[in-house]
Amino acid sequence: MRILLNLEYDGTDYCGWQRQKNGYAVQQAVEEALEKLPGHFSGLTGAGRTDAGVHALGQCAHVDYAGPIPPEKLFLALNGTLPGDVRATASRRVLDGFHARYDALGKTYQYRAWNGTVPSAVFRSTAGFVQGKLDVQCMDRAGQKLVGTHDFSAFQSTGRPVRSAVRTVTELRVLREDGFVVVRISADGFLYNMVRIIAGTLFEIGKGRLKPEVLEDALVRGDRDLLGPTAAPEGLILLHVCYSEAKMGQNILTGREG
Amino acid sequence: MRILLNLEYDGTDYCGWQRQKNGYAVQQAVEEALEKLPGHFSGLTGAGRTDAGVHALGQCAHVDYAGPIPPEKLFLALNGTLPGDVRATASRRVLDGFHARYDALGKTYQYRAWNGTVPSAVFRSTAGFVQGKLDVQCMDRAGQKLVGTHDFSAFQSTGRPVRSAVRTVTELRVLREDGFVVVRISADGFLYNMVRIIAGTLFEIGKGRLKPEVLEDALVRGDRDLLGPTAAPEGLILLHVCYSEAKMGQNILTGREG
Repeated sequence: MRILLNLEYDGTDYCGWQRQKNGYAVQQAVEEALEKLPGHFSGLTGAGRTDAGVHALGQCAHVDYAGPIPPEKLFLALNGTLPGDVRATASRRVLDGFHARYDALGKTYQYRAWNGTVPSAVFRSTAGFVQGKLDVQCMDRAGQKLVGTHDFSAFQSTGRPVRSAVRTVTELRVLREDGFVVVRISADGFLYNMVRIIAGTLFEIGKGRLKPEVLEDALVRGDRDLLGPTAAPEGLILLHVCYSEAKMGQNILTGREG
Repeated sequence: MRILLNLEYDGTDYCGWQRQKNGYAVQQAVEEALEKLPGHFSGLTGAGRTDAGVHALGQCAHVDYAGPIPPEKLFLALNGTLPGDVRATASRRVLDGFHARYDALGKTYQYRAWNGTVPSAVFRSTAGFVQGKLDVQCMDRAGQKLVGTHDFSAFQSTGRPVRSAVRTVTELRVLREDGFVVVRISADGFLYNMVRIIAGTLFEIGKGRLKPEVLEDALVRGDRDLLGPTAAPEGLILLHVCYSEAKMGQNILTGREG
């Protein structure tokens, strides 16, 4: 049977979600933890790749399982074999055709930066850092230009070619939370480094070093060079992946199928 | 001249602020970093001890300095020699008689706990953990009984005898922040483990395992056993130490002394 896992991780010590030639991937940590449980697991597939140093509160992954552990208890068993920087927060049976990546309707990411005089000690691995005064209202207003369906070609790093760079951003908010500046973005999908390029550009706009209009210009001209730097990975966190209940199989989920 | 340092630290890898026979103290890390700077430093004294694993965003400490670095630049120089989990966030000259510990008018601590099904991966060293449903409104209401001047004898761990356990709590708030439950307390001073005992007791009250009345009973009877467990250190953070400008020497602070 196919299982949907909800996963949380501190990406500091990992080369990202995806298995790489060099470095230890979160995917590998989860696979090794699954292998220590009774039964047989295969085909662990994440909803999205996260880069080295990037965190997740709500990563999702599917895996096929034949074994004695009830699907809704699997996450508890898995926490017994996972390292402390990776946690399974929920598990449920889904339809056999369900796919964590292809069936994702949308994702929400958060970029959080410590906005102080000096980089933070306490939050050095779970937040980025932006020095100096930021006009957060101006950042939020500027960001609204990205909401909607656009060709985001300018908002990606090279290295992962895609067929189409058209994505729909459904929400973008910039706000202050205690000593942090937070950029929260929901979209039907994201290009490689898209959130970190948006965040890095909004920080430049907030400092007054770039004009708010660069966002619209970059959408029209598809030119990465118009935008700010890619913000550091430690500030990025995958908050949520959204699926339709129909795709997952609602009866199966709630354990009411029989 | 006497300097007031503002310090931030991730207490995870330290035995606390204060030098101990076993373990490496934050105080020691700061002293060693000061020694690498030009000039002579002596008598580094913190506003308050923090326990092993406890963090600080706003620890204060005074130190005497004879050397070439201007007081208001000292924190920047210090960050060049401090380890990454300790940061100096400000520095200023204060009156020679100023004392970081004795002159503190009050402190604000925050206890933050991840309130989920399983312990957090991302926040495992910077937050505590409380499982299950919590009635946060009930916790906040119950906590108001502690506001004011009381004998907090029941709210301390043994090991650090004090002349008087009378303290004035000026504010206590319990609130939700995203996936966290946060207890924020300001007082003119705190007994050993006082915040962690208050937090641990409020969590039991929030779960319905202890009645709100235990707080008042414990104040009256001075009985530690009436209260909940001491909450884990990683959730505790020293937010702020408050001083009177007169004690510090306002003119000196702002560099306008002539």
